[in-house]
Amino acid sequence: MEKYRVSVCGAAGEVGKQIPSLLEAKGLPVGELHLFGSERTEGNVVKTPFGEVEMQKFLRDTVAEQSDIVFMCVGGEHSMEHASDLATDGRVVIDNSSAFRLDDRVPLIVPGVNTEAIGDANLIANPNCTTAIGMMSLAPIAKKYGLKRLEMETYQAASGAGRLGMEELQQGMAQLVNGKEVTNKAFAHPLAGNVIPHIDKFQENGYTKEEMKVVWETRKILDLLDLPASCGAVRVPTERSHAEAISIETNEPVDLHELREIWEASVGLVVRDDPENNVYPMPINTSNQHDVAVGRLRYNIAYPEDKTRLKFFTCGDQLLRGAALNAVEIAEAVIAQQRVA
Amino acid sequence: MEKYRVSVCGAAGEVGKQIPSLLEAKGLPVGELHLFGSERTEGNVVKTPFGEVEMQKFLRDTVAEQSDIVFMCVGGEHSMEHASDLATDGRVVIDNSSAFRLDDRVPLIVPGVNTEAIGDANLIANPNCTTAIGMMSLAPIAKKYGLKRLEMETYQAASGAGRLGMEELQQGMAQLVNGKEVTNKAFAHPLAGNVIPHIDKFQENGYTKEEMKVVWETRKILDLLDLPASCGAVRVPTERSHAEAISIETNEPVDLHELREIWEASVGLVVRDDPENNVYPMPINTSNQHDVAVGRLRYNIAYPEDKTRLKFFTCGDQLLRGAALNAVEIAEAVIAQQRVA
Repeated sequence: MEKYRVSVCGAAGEVGKQIPSLLEAKGLPVGELHLFGSERTEGNVVKTPFGEVEMQKFLRDTVAEQSDIVFMCVGGEHSMEHASDLATDGRVVIDNSSAFRLDDRVPLIVPGVNTEAIGDANLIANPNCTTAIGMMSLAPIAKKYGLKRLEMETYQAASGAGRLGMEELQQGMAQLVNGKEVTNKAFAHPLAGNVIPHIDKFQENGYTKEEMKVVWETRKILDLLDLPASCGAVRVPTERSHAEAISIETNEPVDLHELREIWEASVGLVVRDDPENNVYPMPINTSNQHDVAVGRLRYNIAYPEDKTRLKFFTCGDQLLRGAALNAVEIAEAVIAQQRVA
Repeated sequence: MEKYRVSVCGAAGEVGKQIPSLLEAKGLPVGELHLFGSERTEGNVVKTPFGEVEMQKFLRDTVAEQSDIVFMCVGGEHSMEHASDLATDGRVVIDNSSAFRLDDRVPLIVPGVNTEAIGDANLIANPNCTTAIGMMSLAPIAKKYGLKRLEMETYQAASGAGRLGMEELQQGMAQLVNGKEVTNKAFAHPLAGNVIPHIDKFQENGYTKEEMKVVWETRKILDLLDLPASCGAVRVPTERSHAEAISIETNEPVDLHELREIWEASVGLVVRDDPENNVYPMPINTSNQHDVAVGRLRYNIAYPEDKTRLKFFTCGDQLLRGAALNAVEIAEAVIAQQRVA
């Protein structure tokens, strides 16, 4: 089997750090692994399943020379500057930032949901974490019953703000426990002991960019370009799993038992829906897990007798399905096409 | 001015403990204050704005002898056993449990919203905390535009589970900070670092009793007996303020600027809606505050061009508007009727 030279740019960040072990877990044919970062991390030696790797300073030409597949786990501006130029000469770039997600020329992929949309693209976008997690339960519904409308309220973890967010939450809880004032910098307000209805920048329509990403990206991934949708995004003091309370309207009436069976047959999704035994999706059960959990499925009784209106609760690891795992599965799909290098 | 003999039953609980200082803050004419609890707290001396008070063991006849107004801050079974018998001989009982809330003979009151429904009742029910907090923003909407449909997803604090819940969250955060396993007893699962989509018992329709309380009690308080409504109730690791993401449909189209003005003129409600300056309702700003905060008002873009579909976020102290403050304001309204004793 052919082996590939794989590079991770932003390898010291919370998402980038997940990639090497996921490459191994998924059994991807990695011939060489290269890790790139800032000057600050240059020379650091990282233990990976593929041996010890010395971090290099990111230089576009160096990355290009050493890579068949490149994971960009960096900020949108950095991706905007370099990703297109790297996605040349047969090289495949999987970009985790928001830079290209809404670019019509760039496919936005959740493997298993719209894998075929990869086509022959060399630059592929990885979705927003909240969107990717939601897709796992929503896509099977859209396929079977048709999705007519989507509303979501989120319970998002500190990891969405990266390492600094996770550290600030840890520190904030320690401050709270010790009766000290909770300080903040990564978040607009203290997160420990609080919830903050504000993620990313506010738009003119009163929604944050995070909320609009769910709307825009869901439409693109499900190829439902006019899907009426809205979201309320709220940061909560959890470490690395996002939870989502989802309300939907379908085209066809839904039998709840049948939908649970469809979900159970879905790859990457696990049904946790046994309320009598206190079983439902929660961050503590999905953190460090590949599978997204879904449960609390019920009809939305705000629409009595209407079997096209459903409510459910889903939860998934923000760094895995919400980022690194999804990106690695995109690479897996590209490799399966046998067209790299 | 006439003075009243006031008793608090369950005075050592988290809600009961709030009552004495609220009686003073509201300037209620308290002649005597009596505090009742279990055998465990009998004889404890409590400092109150009305002097030191020795806790007595709850005995119905003793309470009856010493009281014109009785606050019942005890469990539903205890209320069911004693509240009706105490609400005799001109004595007024304000019950904080769920025992009588849906009893057609018992008014369920949020002062300022449906004060007039008190009538000449001697037994008056105090609503569920989530419902009472939601009423502050919903009632002005219902009055001006007509409320056609209500959907709510909640972010509920540990205090909803009383002292044991608050202590368990504190302990859980300390365990988390110290790298220990988070233990649980008050909650079905560890709450620190988690969110739990389960409050109160599950019903046959897949909703919890907490979720149904919001539906049932909202209908009664707003006198909209057929209001289509649903709720998803989620416990989050905050101390004592509930937050609620609310989506509604109104009968008449709403101008957002006008609604903000209506809210600003509402007693017990403060508008925090200046996203550009990171101003929106949050638990850390509403804890220990009488006023409920509301903000993040926007049209629900899942219904494009529809000005009857709104979304907003509200937050209030679970122990105050959600319980003790609401109860004390009911007493205030009863005293204003000049018919007690």
